[in-house]
Amino acid sequence: MEMLKNDDEDDCLEMLEAIKSVEQILNYKFKDQKLLEKALTHPSYTKSESYERLEIVGDAALGLAIINFAYLAYPHHDPGVLSIIRSANISTEKLARVAISSGLYKYVRHNSPSLDHKVKKFTELVQQEEDITIYGGEMKAPKVLADIVESVIGAVYEDLCFDLKATWLVVGGLLEPIITPQMLQKKPQPVSQLFELCQKNGQQVDIKQTRENDKTTASIYIDNKLIVSASSDQKDNAKLHAATAALEKMDIRSSFSENGKIGTAKRKAI
Amino acid sequence: MEMLKNDDEDDCLEMLEAIKSVEQILNYKFKDQKLLEKALTHPSYTKSESYERLEIVGDAALGLAIINFAYLAYPHHDPGVLSIIRSANISTEKLARVAISSGLYKYVRHNSPSLDHKVKKFTELVQQEEDITIYGGEMKAPKVLADIVESVIGAVYEDLCFDLKATWLVVGGLLEPIITPQMLQKKPQPVSQLFELCQKNGQQVDIKQTRENDKTTASIYIDNKLIVSASSDQKDNAKLHAATAALEKMDIRSSFSENGKIGTAKRKAI
Repeated sequence: MEMLKNDDEDDCLEMLEAIKSVEQILNYKFKDQKLLEKALTHPSYTKSESYERLEIVGDAALGLAIINFAYLAYPHHDPGVLSIIRSANISTEKLARVAISSGLYKYVRHNSPSLDHKVKKFTELVQQEEDITIYGGEMKAPKVLADIVESVIGAVYEDLCFDLKATWLVVGGLLEPIITPQMLQKKPQPVSQLFELCQKNGQQVDIKQTRENDKTTASIYIDNKLIVSASSDQKDNAKLHAATAALEKMDIRSSFSENGKIGTAKRKAI
Repeated sequence: MEMLKNDDEDDCLEMLEAIKSVEQILNYKFKDQKLLEKALTHPSYTKSESYERLEIVGDAALGLAIINFAYLAYPHHDPGVLSIIRSANISTEKLARVAISSGLYKYVRHNSPSLDHKVKKFTELVQQEEDITIYGGEMKAPKVLADIVESVIGAVYEDLCFDLKATWLVVGGLLEPIITPQMLQKKPQPVSQLFELCQKNGQQVDIKQTRENDKTTASIYIDNKLIVSASSDQKDNAKLHAATAALEKMDIRSSFSENGKIGTAKRKAI
């Protein structure tokens, strides 16, 4: 009983420290700190209510905030571009990186031994990235990292009486750099780029995937000839990495179109 | 040229009438009527900008408004219920019915001959429905009807300077009756209900689907015995109708659980 009390006291002190740190990250003082406590509590930590309800609210609030941003910032872009901008800025990949760059990832309260390991490995990989990663890196982004960003946004939103503009003033900075059409143009999605290029060249692309021992291998065939294979523990990443390698092998230089649409690519040599 | 001018004049007068009627439906006077004009313009009508950008904004605004509603109205329901409430209230099925019940469906400006026919057929079917349809009726709901509701919500939201609470005061009434956990409990999703029931009875369910001449036929087998088949031009609806028919054949009476979770069902006889 004494042990339990000490444990609880330790947990409580740790959470108070976490709240203080997150308030510093956000440069925002919560009127109701219980909201932030909830936002930092993973479902595996069963002593308190978890972030799951706040995460749903934060996800919807972020979705609308990003659409408002894109709608106002790009008045002449077609609706497809607005959707692409939304997806890129609310993806698990993007938000997991936000959790790391902001430091929020350190303050999740949980009771899942495997979580720390996954987060540590992902954090190390992200810190080695030289450029902004949009479409998925070496490892699948742990969902908990994206969840925590959404739940903290949800907590700020509720604390500010569901005022989205005021919320964006507090949390908008976390999302920087916001992924723009220009950034996507410079880094077109590798799989789409490969298909677009081969279509232009009148070539047939096939991506074959096989799974063994939790690893997916994606093999790219162009006109029935194997070009390259890549493996990953995540199906989509295997495909992405194989497409990236195929484009490199084909010695691609992206050619940026001038009309602001997502870029096309030119084939130099194969 | 004269003809074109007359055409344009007619179009303009018709749009002014449409704007007046929609303002009456909403009981709201637009500061910028151009927004509503855009919101009522289908992409097939190429003389003016279409509703597509506003529809994306309206979709996100509605998504957040419904989540806010569910979050505040059901403080003790788990996150899964919040997600179900969101999906049920922003589905194409639900919004297409909103377009009809509000009368908004009459004011879409378009240039697609097949659209009127589809909308007319769907409207007739909906008007014959005796009860609230949540999961899909006889015919696939035309997407244009859901789009128009979202774009009008987007137009109100922009006209009100992106103030979601003020927008909800104007458009919230359109969504009535909002689908609640209680309504979903009384009408559980037929396919889930069938699987749940058979699992309870230790029976094996298989749904086999075949497609011919644009029609999908779903056949339900219980313990390898064909129970019923149903066809529809929409794959999901064929499954839904077959499951509904199978449940009827099994003479089901729903038993509503007391804890507010989505209902379970009892088998009376087969």
